Formats: sequence, structure tokens, C-alpha cells
Amino acid sequence: MTVVAGPCSVESEPQIMEAARLVKESGARALRGGVVKYRSSPYSGWEGIGSNSEEALHNGLKLIVKAGKEFGLPTVVEVLDPYDVSVYEDIGVDCIQVGEPNSKNQALLNRLRDTPLPVIHKRGNSLDIEAYLLWVERVMANGKENVILCERGILSANKYTRNTLDLGGIAALHYQLSCLPVGVDASHGTGIRDLVHSMTLAGIMAGASLVLIEAHPNPLIAKSDGFQGLFPEQLTQLVTACEQVWELRKRIDSLYIPSANLEGDYDSRAATDKKRLFGREEKSTRRASEQKG
Amino acid sequence: MTVVAGPCSVESEPQIMEAARLVKESGARALRGGVVKYRSSPYSGWEGIGSNSEEALHNGLKLIVKAGKEFGLPTVVEVLDPYDVSVYEDIGVDCIQVGEPNSKNQALLNRLRDTPLPVIHKRGNSLDIEAYLLWVERVMANGKENVILCERGILSANKYTRNTLDLGGIAALHYQLSCLPVGVDASHGTGIRDLVHSMTLAGIMAGASLVLIEAHPNPLIAKSDGFQGLFPEQLTQLVTACEQVWELRKRIDSLYIPSANLEGDYDSRAATDKKRLFGREEKSTRRASEQKG
Amino acid sequence: MTVVAGPCSVESEPQIMEAARLVKESGARALRGGVVKYRSSPYSGWEGIGSNSEEALHNGLKLIVKAGKEFGLPTVVEVLDPYDVSVYEDIGVDCIQVGEPNSKNQALLNRLRDTPLPVIHKRGNSLDIEAYLLWVERVMANGKENVILCERGILSANKYTRNTLDLGGIAALHYQLSCLPVGVDASHGTGIRDLVHSMTLAGIMAGASLVLIEAHPNPLIAKSDGFQGLFPEQLTQLVTACEQVWELRKRIDSLYIPSANLEGDYDSRAATDKKRLFGREEKSTRRASEQKG
Amino acid sequence: MTVVAGPCSVESEPQIMEAARLVKESGARALRGGVVKYRSSPYSGWEGIGSNSEEALHNGLKLIVKAGKEFGLPTVVEVLDPYDVSVYEDIGVDCIQVGEPNSKNQALLNRLRDTPLPVIHKRGNSLDIEAYLLWVERVMANGKENVILCERGILSANKYTRNTLDLGGIAALHYQLSCLPVGVDASHGTGIRDLVHSMTLAGIMAGASLVLIEAHPNPLIAKSDGFQGLFPEQLTQLVTACEQVWELRKRIDSLYIPSANLEGDYDSRAATDKKRLFGREEKSTRRASEQKG
Repeated sequence: MTVVAGPCSVESEPQIMEAARLVKESGARALRGGVVKYRSSPYSGWEGIGSNSEEALHNGLKLIVKAGKEFGLPTVVEVLDPYDVSVYEDIGVDCIQVGEPNSKNQALLNRLRDTPLPVIHKRGNSLDIEAYLLWVERVMANGKENVILCERGILSANKYTRNTLDLGGIAALHYQLSCLPVGVDASHGTGIRDLVHSMTLAGIMAGASLVLIEAHPNPLIAKSDGFQGLFPEQLTQLVTACEQVWELRKRIDSLYIPSANLEGDYDSRAATDKKRLFGREEKSTRRASEQKG
Repeated sequence: MTVVAGPCSVESEPQIMEAARLVKESGARALRGGVVKYRSSPYSGWEGIGSNSEEALHNGLKLIVKAGKEFGLPTVVEVLDPYDVSVYEDIGVDCIQVGEPNSKNQALLNRLRDTPLPVIHKRGNSLDIEAYLLWVERVMANGKENVILCERGILSANKYTRNTLDLGGIAALHYQLSCLPVGVDASHGTGIRDLVHSMTLAGIMAGASLVLIEAHPNPLIAKSDGFQGLFPEQLTQLVTACEQVWELRKRIDSLYIPSANLEGDYDSRAATDKKRLFGREEKSTRRASEQKG
Repeated sequence: MTVVAGPCSVESEPQIMEAARLVKESGARALRGGVVKYRSSPYSGWEGIGSNSEEALHNGLKLIVKAGKEFGLPTVVEVLDPYDVSVYEDIGVDCIQVGEPNSKNQALLNRLRDTPLPVIHKRGNSLDIEAYLLWVERVMANGKENVILCERGILSANKYTRNTLDLGGIAALHYQLSCLPVGVDASHGTGIRDLVHSMTLAGIMAGASLVLIEAHPNPLIAKSDGFQGLFPEQLTQLVTACEQVWELRKRIDSLYIPSANLEGDYDSRAATDKKRLFGREEKSTRRASEQKG
Repeated sequence: MTVVAGPCSVESEPQIMEAARLVKESGARALRGGVVKYRSSPYSGWEGIGSNSEEALHNGLKLIVKAGKEFGLPTVVEVLDPYDVSVYEDIGVDCIQVGEPNSKNQALLNRLRDTPLPVIHKRGNSLDIEAYLLWVERVMANGKENVILCERGILSANKYTRNTLDLGGIAALHYQLSCLPVGVDASHGTGIRDLVHSMTLAGIMAGASLVLIEAHPNPLIAKSDGFQGLFPEQLTQLVTACEQVWELRKRIDSLYIPSANLEGDYDSRAATDKKRLFGREEKSTRRASEQKG
């Protein structure tokens, strides 16, 4: 289990250096931070330290790479434009992230087929699990294998949380559909600072082995998404808790008995069971167990 | 933490007696079983053992009450019609369940104000968490207090699982919005037998203290929803796992630091932090942390 | 095409009499008005003029029936409790409505099998069109035929309107799935007074032949849902517009050519068309037209 | 009102020439056709005639531009990669389309600020109307004005249609929120050939002034999305019907009375109306009309 933590945005050299130190001290294993940011409004006044020019992009990426190296943390940075991928590679970013708004960005995904860097491909908020896997498959279609899945919240009937963190999707991915590692991002998945702790732990229990957490030296002054960033003390406690939940999950994973191990037996005793449970009058009943209620 | 387990439907006396024995042996603490069933099609041919007449309802309820008494398990039974509530009370059902399709059934909810029995009120699949709490409030409006919340899956972008189990909703209910106990029903919440185990455990980690599990002596011959019912061996293992997850959650609950305990400090050092992290040029910046990305 | 109009709630005798007069003058053909109301909060202080006792229910129903008779308008009233159906019949309500929150209320739907009155069964906001038809089928399962479908808005990605009026669902019901008449309720379907006009007209164009419109002598003082009720002048204009749209739809319905009338021809020329359009190199192409993009 | 019609994909020179001729004969006013295609699976075997190389892109774009010129039809082509925009401009495409999967593609939208070509920006299937307008605003942020909105279906509770065409969103955009022209794409919005006709007409009635229709010389042999493409005869009839619906809408637009024209009057008579409708006992009632039901 790997915890990736850090601020929503790289905001300045002192900010990312301090963030990296806090991430390291918390026990997390990698540093995240955006250099070019998605913003739902073009008038937010802040689209990331690297958004205004190619030079700004270079400088911003260098800051987080420097911070990562200083504290021995590999770095995870989101890419928005296919033509920036080689810049990320050249400057030494360790892992590329595809954000939710680009989950179906065909040009970007096609480009990522060719990067040797691992890619965290976040699930789009309107994608069914199987449809999501087809977009992930796009990155892997030519043989790329180092891809990591990530659930960060989808659209649902719930409006209280910013998004609905689909842990059932994580369980389906991990236990039924894919051999790729699955991440959970409860920061975007809830959008509420005080729900990040419990939902991250629940995500691990559901099947996640990668954890993404937004944290900031002082989230109250963060330039973006501060409402969902953890305070440093919270991050440290959460990393500790993550380790304990992960240990428990590993220990009790063996309690789970796949249905495939049992179905043969129960199928072979179906007639006997029908007789015992339902008696004579059920003799002619067709097997009705698969009808949906 | 309380585990309620049992078949979707009471199907016969031998079936519910055997189910009750298996539930008892698994370590679960209460017995569930429907006597009148929701069916999405009127042509399913099975609407529960008690659906055809008042006499059938009496007899069906007596079966599960008898099974519960035999094995020392309180019983949980769903009610569909306001005029049946007193029958449930008279026959000795221990807890009444309001199912998802009736989550907004005003006549039924109004009637339940007057029952002394505890009520498990399942969340409707299109209800936002706060809207759901208003419907729950309807049952409690005259002073009734023994009401239990229950998340069993909502509508979302995911189609792979039968419903989307909104564990973020459970976390919000338990940690932010309500002092009522919160249940998780991963059987309906996933609709896939092999996801019930992990999603139940994740639900406990997210904040649930009541667990509803469908299980059947032989789910392959169940008359309804057999595809999501656990085999007896799976139930036993899951109850064991639930206890371990619950123990861990209790032990690590203290690791969580509510933001309210930290915000004062971080707010008071905001100016200093801005200077340290952003230097002079940020002086005039308005606090931007609450802007949504 | 039939327009049913009236206030959300019957509020007093003068109110429903004045409403009925305005409905009649507008050219609408039936009068709607609730006597017992759904309220999402139990603390709204108003659950309809007939909500507090059986006597209140009788008196409330009598008011709208009287108003309908006075102005020659059949009446449409929503029922919430299966045990009230016979009261509605006895007092002379002309048509019973099942509201959205009761769309899956099995006990109520089963009861309505036995009423001779026509039933407008509104679609639940989380129901797929085919799932909805199964709940409608429940009312009709014993042979009842006078049932009317009604789309009033479902859950979607849009939050601007109160609900999302699924006109594609209306088109599917009318042109593909059912011979029952289909209604459109743009008042609940938008929840915005100024969108009711255009969305009602669009609903007719999509296939609706019944129109439900909330209107009030003065919606600014309505006890419930006044924000979506039309002013009397708006109602009159909308009824006029409805008639013109209906006339046009009838006139141009013949322009529509069902695919079934053409598919045989185009299928038989598929090989020739492939050769003409794609030339030799496409010879071996499997028919790819049904692949989803 | 402008009808844009054409095949999902440009498949060959004879195909796009024949398609253009049929579009012209139908009375539609512009030609659409994709040269690089979105595909939800990377293994579909067809990603558009221009997908494999820069040369292929050039050749594909030239085909549709040639077809458009031959028949006097301006061309609308979707762009997927920001670096292709100038190629589209150079080859003479008349209008650029941003497809649903790219609705939140920040890099692409930023790039489109600088094109002189009109842009049709399709709404993402998970975007609320107001959130959508913010992404559209991104294209316009530096002063670009020739942008066209387009509803093509969103995520909802309905599964019968491929997407849910949110005509309420069109009405809100046209009548309340924006002065930009609004388009309707019922081909993607329903995904069912036989619903395109009625839903296009309903879209015009709801407020659309641009109509996008997929049609193909023989949709049964189309390489992509053939299940939703119209047969040529259907296209011709639909264009005729569109013109009649548009004429009616123009003629009856004046029947609509904005609430703002009436609210002053009704507000000023609120006290009198309360007395007349509710009598003395309502004196102390606070104005309750804005309570949501």
C-alpha cells in the first residue's frame, strides 16, 4: 500500500518544500502536486504555477521534482496537454496523472501509450466501471503495463458530497475485473475535509492499494481546493491509520471465500435442498434464484 | 456493531428454521426475512409467503418469529402497507424495516410514528443524504427515537453493480449529520454475491454499526435475489471479518482529528504562513482556499 | 390532447372555485388539485387541506369535486394511502393520480387494480423507462386498462432544473413501447415557472397527449410549490399554444417514416452500396454499423 | 434555424460525396462528418479515416471540404487534439466541433480561443447547465464570440436511450441563461434511429435553433454509429418537419409571457388575494409560496 500526498497545487518553492517535508514526516511515500491545474471557471485567477508559458511549466515542474528529490519522494504530477508529456519526462517527474476531466481525452491517452513513466488514470465521473476500463485499455493497447486505476468520485443521487466515491467500483476492479493496482482519492471523492479520513480507510478496505490525499502546510491559505486538503497533523494520523487498515486487510483477506469455490457443491445438492426446504409441492419449480427483485 | 442476516424471503418453515440456525451459528445477532416482497415485475410469480391474504401474512410472520425465538435471534421484517403495522406488532416481530421503494411513502412513514418497535428506514435510491434525513425525520416528528438509518445503494453513473453503495453518505451520516445508528446493506448495494464481503467491511470502516446481509441455506434455489445471497460458509467468515474490522475501527477512531480542533490555530497563523510560503507578492491576495476547482 | 390544470393544493373553497373558473376560462379540460400533499419536510406546516383527519379528507375532496362540477371540469386528485381510494371513489373524484414518491408503492398500486377510475401513474425519478412500465403493469395486471403514463422529471447530471424532464422517455413510450396515453408535467419537470411554457410544448412535440400544468389564482401566495405555478394569464396563453403545437404534430406525424419500412430495402442493397461507397478494398469488411462509438 | 447533417464518419470519397449530395437534397444547410473519431474501445478497428498519420488527417479533411464545396455546404468537423486546430483552419473546414468527451478538455478549449472559426461546444454528459457554461466561457474568455452551445444527452436514471437529451437544459440556456445559439443533437441524445425524428422536433420547440442530425447513404453499412444514423428518406422528411416546427415556434413565441411582466401586479395584490382566497384565518400566515414541496 502506497500513500501519495501533497497539495492540490505547487504554489511556490517554499510551499512545495515545506509540503514535501510534511509528507515525508507523515510516513507517506510519494509527493503529489499540480503544476497546471484544471479550473471549472476560466476566471479563477489561478490555473497553476506552470500554466502561463512553456518556461513557467518547466520551472513549476522543476520545483516539485527538486522537492521530491530533497526528501526522497517520487513525484506524481497531472498532465493536461499531450504535447507536455515529453517535458514531464525530461524534467524527471516520476509518475504522470490523468485527471478526471481528461479521462476520455483520446489524444492525450493515445500519447501516453509511449511514455515509460507509470500513469495514474483517474476514472471520469460519468463512466461506468467497464466503460472506464476501455479508456484505460486505450493507454495499454500497445503493450504499456505500468498503469494504475484510480476512483475519485462519480455522479450520483447524492449532492451532499462533492462527488460520490464509488467504493463498490474499487471492489469490482480489485476483486473481479482487473489485475491493475487501484487507487482511492477521497479528497476529490468527498470534497469535505472531515470525510477524507474515514473514506480513505474505507477505500483501502474495499480493495485500494494506492491512496491519494490532498494535504497542505496550511490548507486555509491554499490557492485551490483548500476546503478538502488535510492539515498536516491530520495527514500524519491518517497515514498511520492507513497502515493499520492495510495490515488488517492483508490478514483477513483469506477469510473471503470466492463463490466459485462453493457453487459446485451447492448446485449438486440443489434437488435435495429443494426437497428438504420446500417439500413435495416445489418439485416442478423452475430454478428461480436468478430473478431480480 | 450488530449483524442482521437471513434470506431475502421467508419461503417455508424448514427454510426459515434452517436459515435461523445458520445465522445463529455464524455469530450474527438478528434474523431478517421478508414475508411480503417487493417485486419489480408483477409477473414474477412470487411476492412472498404472506402476500396473498391476511391469513397468509399472519402465518408468514409467525414462521419467522418462531424461528427467531427458537434460536434467540430478534427478527427484522419489512412492512409495505400501513395497515399491516399492527399485525407485525401483535405477532411479535422485533424490528420493522422500510424498504427502498417505500423510502418516501408518506402514509407508511406517518403510520410508523406510532409503533413502539424500532424502525430501520432504508434510503431511497434517488435521495440526497439531506433529503433522506428529512424523510427519516418524518417518522421521528412526534418524538419517536428508535430509528436506524440504512444505506443500500443509490443511482449513479456506475452500471456494473446493481446499485452504488454510497459509503460517503454513511460517513457523512455518522461523522457529521446524525446521532442515529447507520446500517450498511451491501447485498442490495452491490447485487453481486462476490462483492458483499468486501463492501460490508468497507461500510463498517466508513461508519456503519449495523450490517444487513442476505444469506440462504442454498442461495442457488432461493425464490428471490439468490444472486446476491451469501452461502452459509461465506456468512460465517464475513461475520468474523466484520468483528475484526469493527474492533480495529474502535481502536483507531481516536486517530481522527476533527478539523474544528485545528482550524483556529491555522487561521491565526494564516498571515505568517502566507508570508513564509508565498513571500511579499501575495500580500493582497484574498483568501482563496474555498474556491472550488 | 387534454390539458389538466390547477393548483398544487386545494387551499380553501374560494381558492379552488376561483382556480376552477380560471382553468375553465383558459380552455383547459380538467381540474387538478391535491387534498393530501407530499412534503419533503415533516415540518412544512402544510400537508394539504385533507391531511389531518378522515373528516378533513372528505371535506377537501368535496371542495374540488364541487368546483369541478360547477365548471364542467373532471377532477384529478392524488392519492397517498391505499385505504383512501374508496373515499375518492365515493365522493366523486374523476381520476386518481399516483405521485412520484409512490411510483413504486406496491401496496397502493395493488389496490388501484380494483378501482374503476382512470389512474395517472407518474414515473418515479429513479426509474428507467422499462422499469417504470413494469410498475405500471402492476396496476394493470388483472385487466385494468384505463391507465395513463406521465413523465414528471427524473434524476440526472443537471442541477439547474428541479428535475430533468425526460422527453426522450416520452418519445420512447409513445413511439416504441406502449399504447397507453402519455402525459407531460413540466411544472415538476422543471420546477421553474418560466420554463413550464416551452417544456410543455416540447413535451407535446415529443409524444405527449396529456398535459399537466400547475396554475394558481395568485401563485405568489400559494401554500406549496408556488415557484412553479403559472399565473392565470400564462395558463391561458399556454393552453392556446398547446393546441397549436398539437395541431401541427397531428399534421406532420405522417412525415415520420419508421425505419422498419426502409430497412429491408437498404439491407438488400448493402453489398452494392459497399462496393459503390468503399470500393474493392472493403470486400471483406464485416458489417460494422452496430458498433457503439 | 440551421440543420447540419451528415455521416458520423467520413469513410471514403464516394461516401462523403454521396452523403453531401443527399444532405443538400434534403434541404439541410451544412455538412458534418468526423475525420478522427472517438471510440470507447481502442480495439474497434476504426478511429476515422484521418486517425493514423498527419497525412491521413490532411487527406480526410480535404475530402469533406471538397464535398462541402461541391454542394455549397459549409462543413462542421470535430477536433480532438489542440495541435490539429491549425490544420483544420488551413484546409478550409468551416466550423470546429468539440465533442462530448472533450467538453472539459482544458488544453483544447484554451487553444480554441485563438481560432477565427465558429466552434460548436458540446455539453459533457456529466455537466450541470451552469457548470457547462463555465467551460464554454473558457473558450470565450479572451473575446471570442462565435461559439454555439449544443445539448447531446447527459447521464440520468434512464437507461433505455443511449443518453438523456436534456431539453429542459436547452430551454434554460435559450430562455434564461445565454444569448448564444443552442443546438440539439438527438442522434447521440437518443442513440435510437427511430427516436431522432420526434426528439429533434421537440428540441426545436424547447429552444434550439441549430439541429445536428446523423445520416448516411446507407446507415446499415456505416463504419460507426450506424444504429442512430437516419436513412436518406428520413432525413429529407425530418428537415421538412423541422422547418414547420420552427415556423410555428416563431409564430407562437409571442404567446409566452415572462413572469417578470406579471410578478409586480400579483405581488401588489397579494394581501387582497389572501383575504379573498383564504379569509380572516390566514392573516398571520407568512408567505409560504416559495417552500419546496
